[in-house]
Amino acid sequence: MAQKLIFTNLVIEAVDSLVADLGSPRVFVLVDMNTAHFVLPILKSQCKSFADATVITTLAGDSNKNVDSLQKIWKELSQGEATRNSVIINLGGGMVTDLGGFAAATFKRGIRFVNIPTTLLGAVDAAVGGKTGINFNGLKNEIGAFSEAEAVIISTLFFNTLPQQQLLSGYAEMLKHGLLDSDKTLADLLRYDIVTESAGSSDRLLRLIEESVNIKKNTVESDPTEKGLRRTLNLGHTIGHAFESFAMAHQSPVPHGYAVAWGLVVELILSRLKMDFPAETMQQFAAYVKENYGKFPLQCKDYPELIALMRHDKKNAVASEINFTLLSAVGSPHIDCTATEKEIIAALDLYQDM
Amino acid sequence: MAQKLIFTNLVIEAVDSLVADLGSPRVFVLVDMNTAHFVLPILKSQCKSFADATVITTLAGDSNKNVDSLQKIWKELSQGEATRNSVIINLGGGMVTDLGGFAAATFKRGIRFVNIPTTLLGAVDAAVGGKTGINFNGLKNEIGAFSEAEAVIISTLFFNTLPQQQLLSGYAEMLKHGLLDSDKTLADLLRYDIVTESAGSSDRLLRLIEESVNIKKNTVESDPTEKGLRRTLNLGHTIGHAFESFAMAHQSPVPHGYAVAWGLVVELILSRLKMDFPAETMQQFAAYVKENYGKFPLQCKDYPELIALMRHDKKNAVASEINFTLLSAVGSPHIDCTATEKEIIAALDLYQDM
Repeated sequence: MAQKLIFTNLVIEAVDSLVADLGSPRVFVLVDMNTAHFVLPILKSQCKSFADATVITTLAGDSNKNVDSLQKIWKELSQGEATRNSVIINLGGGMVTDLGGFAAATFKRGIRFVNIPTTLLGAVDAAVGGKTGINFNGLKNEIGAFSEAEAVIISTLFFNTLPQQQLLSGYAEMLKHGLLDSDKTLADLLRYDIVTESAGSSDRLLRLIEESVNIKKNTVESDPTEKGLRRTLNLGHTIGHAFESFAMAHQSPVPHGYAVAWGLVVELILSRLKMDFPAETMQQFAAYVKENYGKFPLQCKDYPELIALMRHDKKNAVASEINFTLLSAVGSPHIDCTATEKEIIAALDLYQDM
Repeated sequence: MAQKLIFTNLVIEAVDSLVADLGSPRVFVLVDMNTAHFVLPILKSQCKSFADATVITTLAGDSNKNVDSLQKIWKELSQGEATRNSVIINLGGGMVTDLGGFAAATFKRGIRFVNIPTTLLGAVDAAVGGKTGINFNGLKNEIGAFSEAEAVIISTLFFNTLPQQQLLSGYAEMLKHGLLDSDKTLADLLRYDIVTESAGSSDRLLRLIEESVNIKKNTVESDPTEKGLRRTLNLGHTIGHAFESFAMAHQSPVPHGYAVAWGLVVELILSRLKMDFPAETMQQFAAYVKENYGKFPLQCKDYPELIALMRHDKKNAVASEINFTLLSAVGSPHIDCTATEKEIIAALDLYQDM
């Protein structure tokens, strides 16, 4: 029951033909306040499958990816007499696809769902891999299920209304996939200027996204329950999460994708120190990130707190060691690498000096 | 990842060796108020794996198989720092295994669980098939997931404290499995007196349960998502559910298993009328049910209400027809049989006259 990935900017046609393929079932559409306003009206006026659909609206934002929103969706499905044959279309960013996917996975022990990501991050990251869920007890994605969509329809149509910061946030995950894949893929990404080019050249962006999603898909498929290879996708995230949590704790939060971009740079430095990752590629990558994302405002006095945060990362089963995915070259990741505090500090120092 | 079925009355040894096989993880035990009182102390004092386990207690009864109890379990797992490696042991009847199985299936996107059913119905029915879930919005099992336990440990040890009515309720499902399987299996069941023999001959009962569970298991395995063969397990349930709902609506509820036993008799009559099911077997079966379960207090004036209830059964996709699993002989079930109102009324008339 592999999930179908449809890359197209002819979204209307794609949705209608998909719903017909699914046997023209009753359709429920999940939107948040943003997509209800910016995206739903377009589809509602042009898509046959949206015309008679029952719309369920949830509050926007990760803080609403919670058990209250989940119960509201369950209730509207139940009161709307959704059956095992019905289909939910999740129209939104990662919050909507995570929440709606989990609601679908658990309603009557599982009904079908389709994701239409409306953000770049959602398209690249959240819509593939079968991870659904909600935050609970103050913990991200504490409750959830592995459940794949029937199909994910990926287009760049809805990105025009996104703020630049959100585009860059999604692009950081694509850069990560490039590093995990090959010099060629990475070079294509570093040549593309997501900020200035994306409005005018959405087909080129769509092809870059397709490449990126397929890299993730191949990794996930070889390791559906996250025991081995899938953990290469943590590249950049040990340092990145520490930056993100640090910034949050000091009341100056940074977007997740920015933290990942900076984390990638530091982990490439660490890869250079420990695994002889090529210096030139490292510098090129760092220059692209600095140009587009700026730099994380790092000071030496912050090191102990950052290292403590890395230690508490949930990927670290043994608290005395700090775990990384590192690269010996572009396309050659190694999971379960450990680094000493001294090595991490050396990498952070080099990052500051760049 | 097939679920292991362990039939034994040496429960202590079975639990400890199973937990060792699972890598001696942290153990959480889910009990309800009843099993906390009657069963947990025995295991806690004798089982090594229970000695250090974290106990989570839920309220008893189907009305507490709800989202509040679910959230309480999620919270205690989260606060108890359960990891993906931890194991939940569900110790109780079908309510506990359904609820605990669903909590396990959704905590951190799925952790392992073991069922130890403490009722006959739980042993025969609820612990096999991977159905987990909760009631929601007034509907039974409206929310849930298909998720199999690592293992189910089935014993008759805990049945001594059960009221006779509960034993009979579970035995009705075993009778159904007998009808679906073979003349030999059915004859063994009709020769056994669950009320008087079960206290003294628990090993014989354990063998009968093993046979019964394997019948269900084979059916479920050939059809995990309930599209075809598995629906033979609905035998007796179209009429049975109508009896159960009718009795509930008239403020004189009957146990589920009793309604199923009576439903089986009426559906055998219908099988006789429509599919030439052997008369002698039908009469033998009806006599056993009458002797042990009595009769459903049926009157002709109740027919329209009963038929309306059958029409609204969730198994009936098309409301104008009423759907049954019927038998042309013991061991020869046919799904998707329809019967007219006239035929159903004829069967109910014959039931009244018996």
